[in-house]
Amino acid sequence: MAVYTEVSDEALASFLEAYDIGTALSFKGIAEGVENSNYLLITTAGQFVLTLYEKRVDPADLPYFLGLMRHLSARGLSCPVPVAAKDGALFRTLCGRPAAVQTFLPGVWPRRVRNEHCAGVGAALAALHHAGEGFPLTRANALGPAGWRPLFAQSATRADEVRAGLAEEIESALSAILSAWPEGLPRGQIHADLFPDNVFFLGDRVSGLIDFYFACTDLYAYDVAVCLNAWCFEADASFNVTKARLLLAAYTAQRPLSVPEREALPVLCAGAALRFLLTRLHDWLNHPAGALVTPKDPLEYARKLRFHRAARSARDYGLD
Amino acid sequence: MAVYTEVSDEALASFLEAYDIGTALSFKGIAEGVENSNYLLITTAGQFVLTLYEKRVDPADLPYFLGLMRHLSARGLSCPVPVAAKDGALFRTLCGRPAAVQTFLPGVWPRRVRNEHCAGVGAALAALHHAGEGFPLTRANALGPAGWRPLFAQSATRADEVRAGLAEEIESALSAILSAWPEGLPRGQIHADLFPDNVFFLGDRVSGLIDFYFACTDLYAYDVAVCLNAWCFEADASFNVTKARLLLAAYTAQRPLSVPEREALPVLCAGAALRFLLTRLHDWLNHPAGALVTPKDPLEYARKLRFHRAARSARDYGLD
Repeated sequence: MAVYTEVSDEALASFLEAYDIGTALSFKGIAEGVENSNYLLITTAGQFVLTLYEKRVDPADLPYFLGLMRHLSARGLSCPVPVAAKDGALFRTLCGRPAAVQTFLPGVWPRRVRNEHCAGVGAALAALHHAGEGFPLTRANALGPAGWRPLFAQSATRADEVRAGLAEEIESALSAILSAWPEGLPRGQIHADLFPDNVFFLGDRVSGLIDFYFACTDLYAYDVAVCLNAWCFEADASFNVTKARLLLAAYTAQRPLSVPEREALPVLCAGAALRFLLTRLHDWLNHPAGALVTPKDPLEYARKLRFHRAARSARDYGLD
Repeated sequence: MAVYTEVSDEALASFLEAYDIGTALSFKGIAEGVENSNYLLITTAGQFVLTLYEKRVDPADLPYFLGLMRHLSARGLSCPVPVAAKDGALFRTLCGRPAAVQTFLPGVWPRRVRNEHCAGVGAALAALHHAGEGFPLTRANALGPAGWRPLFAQSATRADEVRAGLAEEIESALSAILSAWPEGLPRGQIHADLFPDNVFFLGDRVSGLIDFYFACTDLYAYDVAVCLNAWCFEADASFNVTKARLLLAAYTAQRPLSVPEREALPVLCAGAALRFLLTRLHDWLNHPAGALVTPKDPLEYARKLRFHRAARSARDYGLD
């Protein structure tokens, strides 16, 4: 929940002159999203979301992110579509930051995940993987396996402040996961952060996906593993295999998992849990006092990581 | 900027069943407003704002606030209008809090006040004072003169933490203002907090007023004094008499100030400055570490208070 940059009405009016979307009727900061400043912008032409990219997004990545959203939308995936300025640019500068206008996506993200949501998200993830085919740009996964050791190095000496023994537990998991990490699985454009707050529903139907600012070119099955972590655990850290079955069945109905992908599921899930554990640990230890954003509990992912390290096969995730 | 209460999609759907406004298409927390949780709610019937009243609003005051908004709107003032539920109630309960649905008001509040805005706000304030006539309920001004001494008592011993000598300066102003406070001036329903973020514009035209949760029954000229404080000082604390002239000319064109009201203007302005100094001082000294809302600088109002205490007559505010 955050709006970091305050946009004056004059700066907005001048920014909108570069677009063909009319003049502002309303402009309200949205209290969602932890990386960027998002505004709901209603103009004489319709409803839009205006995003100002704060420091965590590298402007050099914007052609990939925004181009991918246009590509996905053109191939039938429901997601916000960046609106080009009169000069064709997908992003411009506002208040000294890169800024993009996107179409407004109806829907509400589920605060409490029900089983029906899991089927929806599985199908939507497969649709995303198919729709991403043919997109000409690539982006390395900055938070993929190659990034985990450097990321952990920033927190290792202080990890035990969060829980005694945590540093050793992470170190052990890191070595095991990196040495077992699969090679040669199918790759393509993945979302890499498809948590419930990034999936909009109208009733039980997915109305669209948002927030492609961790998207990258990596293993499709890793994206599935992220979703299993994000959607299929209960608040008490128990794994809900019914949800996992629904998610995986809906995904594989559109994009079957190969045998090597299935076999890799436990280590991919452990890697995904480790990735969120490491970023949360870093944010937990480094958030400034009085920050607008409350950091998320890293131990939630330490518990999920334990589940995955104990898993033997894809059967533990409900796959036959 | 704040959303304090997280509303689940299920709680929202069940809440909306009590209204005749369709089902939710979108529901986004708005990063504005420091007292309540506000959501932009788009339904199959249109755009609304849903407000959850957090602890600073007394539910017993809601019939006054919401009734006043309906009254003002019915008399031609542009403001959000509370939407009655099927059973006629203007507020119901959501997530354990009183909650109201209001119509959506187009417009953008001015981040930087220009002269033209001041004319607009003067006219809108007079229109509000006229439109409030005939409203049958009353509400005492909890932050009026009778409340200042008890409010200061909560901060007096720590005021010098903010600036050496501040406690003595406030004590001296408080005694002087209370002893000179006018009796018998015209009274009615006032907004009492008409700062720039509560006045929406489309271009240079006022499109409406929001946030009536400090509204009360008190001196009309005190409401003018609040606006002079809120709209007519520059960032360096200098008083912009051109802005004040525009504000007062637009106000008095619709509701002339009587001689006693004009004569009282300096003390009313000093009182208004003191009111915001005291609440900001309290919030500054008492905000929890890690709070979502950054407290506003109390010393801004200490500087404004000095200006008003040095003023001799309404002439110092640009009135002839």
